[in-house]
Amino acid sequence: MAEGEFAFIRRHLRPLAAHEPAALGLEDDAAVLAPTPGHEIVLTKDAIVAGVHFLADDPAETVAQKLLRVNLSDLAAMGARPIGHLLVFARPAALAEAWIEGFCRGLAADQATYGIGLLGGDTVSTPGPLTLSLTAIGDLPAGSALRRSGARAGDDLWVSGTLGDGALGLRVLTGELAVPPEAAAVLIERYRVPAPRVALGPALRGLATAAIDVSDGLLADLGHVLEASAVGAEVAAAALPLSDAAIGLAGAEDAALTGGDDYELLFTVPADQRNAVDELGRELALRLTRIGCITTERALRVRGADGREITSPRRGWQHF
Amino acid sequence: MAEGEFAFIRRHLRPLAAHEPAALGLEDDAAVLAPTPGHEIVLTKDAIVAGVHFLADDPAETVAQKLLRVNLSDLAAMGARPIGHLLVFARPAALAEAWIEGFCRGLAADQATYGIGLLGGDTVSTPGPLTLSLTAIGDLPAGSALRRSGARAGDDLWVSGTLGDGALGLRVLTGELAVPPEAAAVLIERYRVPAPRVALGPALRGLATAAIDVSDGLLADLGHVLEASAVGAEVAAAALPLSDAAIGLAGAEDAALTGGDDYELLFTVPADQRNAVDELGRELALRLTRIGCITTERALRVRGADGREITSPRRGWQHF
Repeated sequence: MAEGEFAFIRRHLRPLAAHEPAALGLEDDAAVLAPTPGHEIVLTKDAIVAGVHFLADDPAETVAQKLLRVNLSDLAAMGARPIGHLLVFARPAALAEAWIEGFCRGLAADQATYGIGLLGGDTVSTPGPLTLSLTAIGDLPAGSALRRSGARAGDDLWVSGTLGDGALGLRVLTGELAVPPEAAAVLIERYRVPAPRVALGPALRGLATAAIDVSDGLLADLGHVLEASAVGAEVAAAALPLSDAAIGLAGAEDAALTGGDDYELLFTVPADQRNAVDELGRELALRLTRIGCITTERALRVRGADGREITSPRRGWQHF
Repeated sequence: MAEGEFAFIRRHLRPLAAHEPAALGLEDDAAVLAPTPGHEIVLTKDAIVAGVHFLADDPAETVAQKLLRVNLSDLAAMGARPIGHLLVFARPAALAEAWIEGFCRGLAADQATYGIGLLGGDTVSTPGPLTLSLTAIGDLPAGSALRRSGARAGDDLWVSGTLGDGALGLRVLTGELAVPPEAAAVLIERYRVPAPRVALGPALRGLATAAIDVSDGLLADLGHVLEASAVGAEVAAAALPLSDAAIGLAGAEDAALTGGDDYELLFTVPADQRNAVDELGRELALRLTRIGCITTERALRVRGADGREITSPRRGWQHF
């Protein structure tokens, strides 16, 4: 490790690990984590590349927040509670100090929000674009993980929050979509700083039969559940929850069906537990919407308000 | 996630996770790991970048092996037993399919060697060079982790295997050093495919007072131990273990002192346990060499055969 890398770790990463005994002050070769007895450890790992996964002029703070939050969303989809994370920076020489400081500020704020810390971190240099890789660690009681494979015919299909905002926000940022300033701010914020459903995920253990987070788009992610569970589904387009900012916008329904970057939870629950889900939504003050049901026929059908099937030229949801 | 990424995971990564229940077939959002009761989880994370950490014409198989092995070396330095790993590929579009296949072949071979599997994996595209990030997971009995901070004055200083081969191998590869073909093959192999001390590390729990792996160079890594332990050390240059391939080469002693890429374990043991270390070396059929001792004076001194201190213009070991 080059001398500059030690300085980087000391200066930028060590403060992020200050309150984490497992991080050993980032001074040792690895982090040491004491699991809660009777719990399992849940691990997920993602990388983002400048110019591919975030825009050059995205604020550094929100890049950090989104990187952490998409991983927390993966943990939530399994029903896990977040514990901490490890971070690797692959840094181009030209990366401004101010950008790194903004990134670490955003990360510190989110670590406080979610009650977690940095357990391990490293940095390497790269002649390519800034590349960030994060491993998130969570836990849950042994045997309670939510899987994609548990959906059964007759289950209700639910989704948290609202759909399509992230994809619409990206279209506003790239200039493809013009909307009034207030709506623009809401949609851009949803794209840049998604809200992982860290309270909902663990609350669904023992209630949901399957869960996934909506990162690739509702239909694509639902397709993964259907494939893993060997079932089909019907979705009522009119039931899709849209935000006030999205309602009435051109392409809003399409964004809700196929746009990515929502980071809401899509989950299935036996139909006799409908009241329990409604109760949970009230408890968490979180909109939970029943958007369809699981079917035995292995197809994914979306029906319009008139009951007729809507077909889409987009790959990956009509046939999977 | 783009469709090509699913195909990549299905084709290349899923076979690497085939025997790992914790990986859930790479079908879910995260891996779920059941810790051994009474054990702690050890986590380490590294990234490598094409053109920076490996050479463009390094065989893909050995790139995979080195990436995994340097992380296993970090686990060994903590005294941990490896359990599994997570891998992220940031792939340029031009990366040849044959290269990826070679990489996965090398990884599969090493997974078999070390009895571990892939627990989670992902891929993203990048306009920059191939960047690989690996998180290794291990475990050890609670409270038994080897730290850098436990060295005490009077402890013996030990090192496993031989030193300097990795750095000499790199110099052979870059054409800076000409050696007979047989020695060249040995040194290059040591650079490309280091041997992490996965049996030694766990065996040192309860015996060593501090440990680190030699990745940055003996003196730099010893400096980390001395700093963390608030002590100093004396090293006898004549005691440094050199391989038959390295003995007599120009710069061999310097490579042993300051070259990186050895991935041997450097550790401290109370002087009254000398026989136990010798016995352990015999048991593991691994050369373990006493190269000096820990001192109260917070300085790192290297003495030649005549007892006189050797000074070096290199930064980072005379003063730390």
